[in-house]
Amino acid sequence: MPLIVQKYGGSSVADVERIKNVARRVVDAKDHGNDLVVVVSAMAGDTDRLLGLAAKISDAPNERELDVIVATGEQISIGLLSLAIQQLGHKARSFTGAQVRIQTDTAHTKARIVSVEVDRAQQALQEGAIVIVAGFQGVTAEEDVTTLGRGGSDLTAVAMAAALKADVCEIYTDVEGVYTADPNIVPEARKLEKISYDEMLELASLGAKVLQARSVEYAKNYTVPVHVRSSFNANQGTLVVQEDAEMERVVVSGIAYDRNEAKITVLRVADRPGIAAKLFGRVAEANIVVDMIVQNISQDGTTDISFTVPKSDFSKAMSLVNGVAKEIGAQQVMGDDRIAKVSIVGVGMRTHSGVAAQMFETLSRENINILMISTSEIKVSCVIDAKYGELAVRILHEAFGLAERRVVEEYA
Amino acid sequence: MPLIVQKYGGSSVADVERIKNVARRVVDAKDHGNDLVVVVSAMAGDTDRLLGLAAKISDAPNERELDVIVATGEQISIGLLSLAIQQLGHKARSFTGAQVRIQTDTAHTKARIVSVEVDRAQQALQEGAIVIVAGFQGVTAEEDVTTLGRGGSDLTAVAMAAALKADVCEIYTDVEGVYTADPNIVPEARKLEKISYDEMLELASLGAKVLQARSVEYAKNYTVPVHVRSSFNANQGTLVVQEDAEMERVVVSGIAYDRNEAKITVLRVADRPGIAAKLFGRVAEANIVVDMIVQNISQDGTTDISFTVPKSDFSKAMSLVNGVAKEIGAQQVMGDDRIAKVSIVGVGMRTHSGVAAQMFETLSRENINILMISTSEIKVSCVIDAKYGELAVRILHEAFGLAERRVVEEYA
Repeated sequence: MPLIVQKYGGSSVADVERIKNVARRVVDAKDHGNDLVVVVSAMAGDTDRLLGLAAKISDAPNERELDVIVATGEQISIGLLSLAIQQLGHKARSFTGAQVRIQTDTAHTKARIVSVEVDRAQQALQEGAIVIVAGFQGVTAEEDVTTLGRGGSDLTAVAMAAALKADVCEIYTDVEGVYTADPNIVPEARKLEKISYDEMLELASLGAKVLQARSVEYAKNYTVPVHVRSSFNANQGTLVVQEDAEMERVVVSGIAYDRNEAKITVLRVADRPGIAAKLFGRVAEANIVVDMIVQNISQDGTTDISFTVPKSDFSKAMSLVNGVAKEIGAQQVMGDDRIAKVSIVGVGMRTHSGVAAQMFETLSRENINILMISTSEIKVSCVIDAKYGELAVRILHEAFGLAERRVVEEYA
Repeated sequence: MPLIVQKYGGSSVADVERIKNVARRVVDAKDHGNDLVVVVSAMAGDTDRLLGLAAKISDAPNERELDVIVATGEQISIGLLSLAIQQLGHKARSFTGAQVRIQTDTAHTKARIVSVEVDRAQQALQEGAIVIVAGFQGVTAEEDVTTLGRGGSDLTAVAMAAALKADVCEIYTDVEGVYTADPNIVPEARKLEKISYDEMLELASLGAKVLQARSVEYAKNYTVPVHVRSSFNANQGTLVVQEDAEMERVVVSGIAYDRNEAKITVLRVADRPGIAAKLFGRVAEANIVVDMIVQNISQDGTTDISFTVPKSDFSKAMSLVNGVAKEIGAQQVMGDDRIAKVSIVGVGMRTHSGVAAQMFETLSRENINILMISTSEIKVSCVIDAKYGELAVRILHEAFGLAERRVVEEYA
């Protein structure tokens, strides 16, 4: 019997009526002859409510205890969904992360999965039950409750699918799948039938919030086919799968767009070993995540370093970097939080040249100045003035012909 | 270092402010040189909220899943209390029933404790931490979450105290201790300094809701000294301990009063084997708990059987008994839900005679008619007309001299 792992997020189980809807959907899949493992998040709002209670007691709550508190959200969801499925006349059995069992390291609030045991889940499946698993949570070797970080329920679903060798891991969301660009910006954006793990990883890390990045990595490592689809209808969504020859012939699969970063430039830094380490060491100590880093070639023994940080950390980062700049004898620090990052992503870039050039040319045709460039094997990102962000997404979508499903040979 | 187990109920942890109060109280005991294990219930209202969610999905929810849902209430409390204690600069570590570990049978929603392991709690104590334990919950050998029934947190506290050989188990409540009678009825009622397990058991089962009856049994079996005291002040409450010679010299320790029963009488039942079994078998099948049963001597080969049931089950019981009465050829069924049960309790009765007689005489002096009588070794209960209930409690309190702490010799 085919085995499907389904994952429903907090908004899909936000209240009793929606939980009943999920139950009907699950039972429908079961009635079509599948074994079912269902991973659920906490009811929307519950996690924030619990965090709020903890925040009333402590500004910096102990993370072990925070996990104990927050993990109750998913535990409530699994019980309620099991009841709703049983009410429809099917067998269902709930499991917490500790029960199922998802063992993690001890990094509370952002634990990493160490191993997944599925004996109990498999036994329940053999008895004909639908297995309901609490997302987002695990347990240490010492039986302490852990959580996997925001979006961790995706990871739970993929990890269960990997351990059970499921035929597919279905992630139900409030969008129809993965698009060539944000349909709110590009009306012609097309839903992708399939996309490779690497492309999805780039899109996830570039701000397309359909799938948590770690869950995509995990799916890639265990070759779990992931189906991103809507919880509001039965339409096919987007399959995230291993790269194949056909995918490689598509040069650009999608355009990502991120308005949540700010740029900091340190001017005329002495170009000698240890300077960059000192600068970024300090930024890291302050728990500020740096995304792009660009350093130009040295002139007169000095160089300019530019990097981006989350907009929410911009002012904190600016005052920090101003301090470090003095220590390392830099001339000046400049900041800009009105920027946008536009990226083209596609595994086809590995085997096609001229893609970056076409991107730059497309932007320049509209007189859009490029402030920073960063590339990976399958991605080119440009930081530009925020006011041109949406225009850039639209013209790149057009230039790379993404509205049409087509295989581009011209770069070969 | 002395070891104290403290238990706080749902109203003591109803909100963040009260949780902080409990934390201060716990830390104060710790600062006085004690090791501390603290058992907490769910925040007041939380359990009902969770049961309400389940009830919206199913009229008869699966009890395994119900336990999964309801157990989250205590899990939230232990995390929050740990945070509050840590905020006061002390080490604290929370444990669910499964973690600590309280192993039970599989009777979900009313599980019985099979064994208590305390290795993890002991280790945490040795590390100087205050141990916080989720009340009301346990875990089966199969790792399924169970709950111990309403009032189960008392049982958790006593079981932890027994397993850890604690010096005392303090149960914090909204009353000052155990009184000779309900102070709302008898203004002169006196707080008892100490009371025996057996007396407490009779009082608990007779409706004095200070301590859950099963926890008293457990305390008796393991000789755990239980201190019932107020969570609002530091006054000494009542110690529930093993019977001693001094206690035996007190004939009556307290008066219990119960207005929540109704009486059913089956008239002129054939007096032959199997009739009572049939009648009460049917009542038990309907999950109606029968308290007192009185059967008079046979006349003309028939007898009358009277018994009491909870008032909430009265109409259900009446229609059921009417049916059975026809089958067994009884003449008539009479019901009365305007009754009260007044009981005198005291271990001294074991060795003193004439106590029941003095009770009957006291009631008759006020022309209070006795409808049913039932006795145990250390208790005499009388069912009377409801309208005389409070009067009966007052005159019995007076007659047995309970307002004064005194040892009565006159019955010897």
